Amino acid sequence: MTVDQHEWLAFAKSIALKAGDMIVAFREENAFQKDYKLGHELVTSADLAVDQLLVSSLAEKYPTHGIMSEESFPNLDLGSQDENVPVWVIDPIDGTVNFAHGHKHVAVSIGLYLGGERILGVVNAPFLGECFWALRGQGAYCNDAKLSVSGAIDLRNALVATGFPYVKKDIATILARVSNVLHACQDIRRNGSAALDLCWVAAGRLDAYFESVKPWDMAAGALIAEEAGAYVGHYASTQNEWPEVVDGESLLVSTPELCEKLCVLLK
Amino acid sequence: MTVDQHEWLAFAKSIALKAGDMIVAFREENAFQKDYKLGHELVTSADLAVDQLLVSSLAEKYPTHGIMSEESFPNLDLGSQDENVPVWVIDPIDGTVNFAHGHKHVAVSIGLYLGGERILGVVNAPFLGECFWALRGQGAYCNDAKLSVSGAIDLRNALVATGFPYVKKDIATILARVSNVLHACQDIRRNGSAALDLCWVAAGRLDAYFESVKPWDMAAGALIAEEAGAYVGHYASTQNEWPEVVDGESLLVSTPELCEKLCVLLK
Repeated sequence: MTVDQHEWLAFAKSIALKAGDMIVAFREENAFQKDYKLGHELVTSADLAVDQLLVSSLAEKYPTHGIMSEESFPNLDLGSQDENVPVWVIDPIDGTVNFAHGHKHVAVSIGLYLGGERILGVVNAPFLGECFWALRGQGAYCNDAKLSVSGAIDLRNALVATGFPYVKKDIATILARVSNVLHACQDIRRNGSAALDLCWVAAGRLDAYFESVKPWDMAAGALIAEEAGAYVGHYASTQNEWPEVVDGESLLVSTPELCEKLCVLLK
Repeated sequence: MTVDQHEWLAFAKSIALKAGDMIVAFREENAFQKDYKLGHELVTSADLAVDQLLVSSLAEKYPTHGIMSEESFPNLDLGSQDENVPVWVIDPIDGTVNFAHGHKHVAVSIGLYLGGERILGVVNAPFLGECFWALRGQGAYCNDAKLSVSGAIDLRNALVATGFPYVKKDIATILARVSNVLHACQDIRRNGSAALDLCWVAAGRLDAYFESVKPWDMAAGALIAEEAGAYVGHYASTQNEWPEVVDGESLLVSTPELCEKLCVLLK
């Protein structure tokens, strides 16, 4: 662990907290407009303003680093990034639909990877007063409390989270998986923030999570889950050219004891 | 509105708050055991202790009233109750799986009906500091704030909650409905507490909710939703001999503008 990495983490936390305050203020003042990307996926003016804060802060502090952000740089070619350049992967508001509907299950997600390794992750849930974070090899935390996965070994009592895409063409396949999980496990949760679902596996509040998501949804949370002892992998082979550390396709995160059994259910 | 009804409400609130404190203490002290009803449905010693508090408080204060409770009197014959006797319908912990997994989305639910009318409802979410309540004809509230439904008119942007039963035989039918909703609406939420889903429709955080549930899951929340301006009814005809006011089969609660469109999707 280098001095750099500790400094990067401290900076990521500081801007995640600032962004969280901004998100809370936007909602308290009801000061945001709604719009729809691709005709259906909600984006608000708060997403764009928080994105602007995060991207400009990082670009100013670390001008040589790469930045991939859901709102301003969603198409950065991660496959061709120089291995020696740290890349920040950002979702200004994970859970935008929740945000717009007045739910508390909303987070700022900031991850950093370098040379094929996740280095740090910060997922700040400002309405819940919970900031999750991890540094590679140093464990995962919620505020000051160390996290560890639930230790669930039995599918029958497992609580499993998932999500549904805005693009509707794969719904039948996804619901077939949901059916298998409902028959074999205790229940399903659909809370509406992938980044927080990953942190909740880390905290033992969920026993597993599966979904196909974008890099910015999982870059930070995957490290937090991993550092809390979770299996982080895929329930099917993926076809992206993205580095494995930010490949959210067919993502499966669970207690180590459940991952093989879940892979069978989700195939 | 009679003096009695105001007194009943005040008493229901007082015991719902006491029960909430008890639930928080049980979890903070990790002082509960888990068990499974019917081999699969979780019940904890906290459910039983909170039930005991509520039932004994009500029986002592109102010895002539009826009581139906999930844990101690689940089989009270509601169809043959005297029309002039008020009946309390109670769920000590709605969201037991959430409670046991450390989630905040957990509630005490206390409803009262009389002669075929819902009279009052209290749904206290102690981990979230939100006590929802309503008295027939007097509006619905969260703490001191008056509630009203979202006003959503368009399925495409509607956020719809549902749940899945512990008994697995109907899952295929339910997932066919979920598929229709996912194709037509913005997204699905599965938060894990029916009573709170109803209150969240009342608060405009959800645009609709559908599920088949038991009387204790919906007796209180249905009045809170109704008093906030929601449609409260069924998406299919029901076959219970229970009074309509506590019949949770094929329950649909939504903004008035969405109910017919949702009925078509859920048929």
